[in-house]
Amino acid sequence: MPKADTARFLQDLHELRQIGAYRTGVHRPTYSPQDMESRRWLMRKMEEVGLEASIDGIGNVYGRHKGPGPHLLAGSHIETQNEAGWLDGALGVVGALAMARAGLPVDVCAFADEEGHFEGGFLGSRSIIGDLSEEEIDRSRNRSDGTKLRDALAAAGLAGLPRMQLEPGRHKGFFEMHIEQGTQLERAGLRLGIVSGIVAIWQWRLLVEGQQDHAGGTTMAERRDAGLTAVRLLAAIDAEFPRFCGERSTWTTGRITLDPGAPSIIPGRADVLFQFRDVSLAKLEEMEAGLRRLVQESNRRERCETTLTAVGKATPALCDPGMMRALQAAAEALAPGAWQVMPSGAGHDAQYIAQLMPSAMLFVPSIGGISHHWAEDTKEEDLALGVETLVEAGARFLAGSN
Amino acid sequence: MPKADTARFLQDLHELRQIGAYRTGVHRPTYSPQDMESRRWLMRKMEEVGLEASIDGIGNVYGRHKGPGPHLLAGSHIETQNEAGWLDGALGVVGALAMARAGLPVDVCAFADEEGHFEGGFLGSRSIIGDLSEEEIDRSRNRSDGTKLRDALAAAGLAGLPRMQLEPGRHKGFFEMHIEQGTQLERAGLRLGIVSGIVAIWQWRLLVEGQQDHAGGTTMAERRDAGLTAVRLLAAIDAEFPRFCGERSTWTTGRITLDPGAPSIIPGRADVLFQFRDVSLAKLEEMEAGLRRLVQESNRRERCETTLTAVGKATPALCDPGMMRALQAAAEALAPGAWQVMPSGAGHDAQYIAQLMPSAMLFVPSIGGISHHWAEDTKEEDLALGVETLVEAGARFLAGSN
Repeated sequence: MPKADTARFLQDLHELRQIGAYRTGVHRPTYSPQDMESRRWLMRKMEEVGLEASIDGIGNVYGRHKGPGPHLLAGSHIETQNEAGWLDGALGVVGALAMARAGLPVDVCAFADEEGHFEGGFLGSRSIIGDLSEEEIDRSRNRSDGTKLRDALAAAGLAGLPRMQLEPGRHKGFFEMHIEQGTQLERAGLRLGIVSGIVAIWQWRLLVEGQQDHAGGTTMAERRDAGLTAVRLLAAIDAEFPRFCGERSTWTTGRITLDPGAPSIIPGRADVLFQFRDVSLAKLEEMEAGLRRLVQESNRRERCETTLTAVGKATPALCDPGMMRALQAAAEALAPGAWQVMPSGAGHDAQYIAQLMPSAMLFVPSIGGISHHWAEDTKEEDLALGVETLVEAGARFLAGSN
Repeated sequence: MPKADTARFLQDLHELRQIGAYRTGVHRPTYSPQDMESRRWLMRKMEEVGLEASIDGIGNVYGRHKGPGPHLLAGSHIETQNEAGWLDGALGVVGALAMARAGLPVDVCAFADEEGHFEGGFLGSRSIIGDLSEEEIDRSRNRSDGTKLRDALAAAGLAGLPRMQLEPGRHKGFFEMHIEQGTQLERAGLRLGIVSGIVAIWQWRLLVEGQQDHAGGTTMAERRDAGLTAVRLLAAIDAEFPRFCGERSTWTTGRITLDPGAPSIIPGRADVLFQFRDVSLAKLEEMEAGLRRLVQESNRRERCETTLTAVGKATPALCDPGMMRALQAAAEALAPGAWQVMPSGAGHDAQYIAQLMPSAMLFVPSIGGISHHWAEDTKEEDLALGVETLVEAGARFLAGSN
């Protein structure tokens, strides 16, 4: 039975952590110099473990196993949120490398921009399954600074490279290891999570148009304050969403930008990033209907008009039962009683890859549940147990002895 | 009787408009290269009309009349909000130049940072009345980019210059001409406003501290979402302020910053700029008590704590009855029936100068009430009537023939 080399695995993780280091975390936004350096590092690592490494026109880094099949696919992403943790994404990629190093017939992939620095998000996994058009690439911009995706690709030296597609029939299934990004394992005193399904994120933009004016010269009755309309709408969402959300739905306002954003100026425009998540498509559609109703009510009541735009609507994905059985058997063998089956509240590349092949995910605990922050961390013994379980499950799944 | 040279006055305004031109407005934030260029331009203009020009350690530009008194003081400010209008502030400074050019014994002053780019605000008028300490200058930072005031003064070449004080007993009164920054004159079909009093701005910062987390991995029940707490508090202010505000009170949220401000991250911190205004000190204190109560209630109810900090608390000022009579007599002589007495909803340098001498303000209409935006404008005939009224009122007030 192939075994994971946990020492080499941890060493790889710590090496990667040096690239774009920020406090105890990392800063590697998509296509930044740090991100591109980490992609080049990954290609060298792939070659070291005997894979044929390449990078494509959207930044996907792929290490192809040279031997005969049946093959597995494994991986995650390598870029990070701004000033974020060292494990998110990196863990799944370095874990996939460990599978290959252990001798499993695995193709390793780091999918670009899972973190959604650019409009659309999940560019790499969507591209590799044929779900990203040239037109969308033409349109997409960086969500923070407005840089065109085309310009970012060119600056990163990726312009003109072909975009790879998954080879039909080549893979028996896709494994992705990831940190939990929550506290359920930690609170229950467990060390491994076998993911049952991945929520979909439906991301929205609420744009409120009002009239910019002096905050003293304009009476309350005369104002068309876009910021106030946004606050009232967000308060209504806060009050109403619990009436039609699912048991594990989440909804989040990540950014509110008032324009021009000065103390003595009535905001003429408010730009809000809002998202919700669920594993059930029906529930997602119910939440969308509720959101549209609230925006409509706001537009009837308020002096400022709000426009609702869908930025991204992913499809929720259920994990493959056979692959889940392999993960459960491996977990029970290596950490008896210390694992559970659980849904993933966060979106992952696996939800797209699952459209083309059986897919499954393995979670390790996050200390304090901290995620998307440089303080994110996981105990080294949990990381080691994770990669051992991943390799064992891959071997079991390939052998068909679940 | 001295008369305003309206052609020269308009020519000066259009010359000044070229410095930092942005679309049809201007961009001259305090101590920026554009702002400093406009201060040098003003010093040349002062010398042209026979004044002795100087600049002081906070950026105040002062043109001292060389002849005998009794003197008047007149002026306003010359820096602007970002990408703002060409008349706000500039009108009162160029109007004061026109008074000197007409032969009135006037000292002209452009007070620095009326617009409050730096913490504290009204730096120039507060400095010249002795209400700005060296300690406050040490502490103050640019509200947008955090630059230290000391560093900005050094970069502008002002470090080490003495800060001027008004000479006790030198001035009979202070005149400030300004655009209305509202639509009351326009709606009533009037051309001049004689200001009865100036509201005070009480500016606050609401800082909400929560826990930054992943927007999918953290359930709604586990979250400490600083943005959500801010939205709830702002919605409570929106609902409750009408219960204790005055008839003409205004309150405004100018900026909401969620940190880190990404779509899939629960904000760990929310930073809100909030202000209210009134002419009545009692009413201002009542609103402060109400605000403190709402913050306290929020801290009892919410999982995130909000800290309320007073950024600035100005004193409301009433205009001098004798100066108001001179303005009314001049307005009635030049535009019979086309003027009214009205309060100023915006803060102005006059509210600080009023602490040392009788002060009064004259308003001209703002087209569409637009203010603090590059589209701000006033008809040229209204600008001309304004400066004629200002010169006439100055002469009448000096002559004591109200």
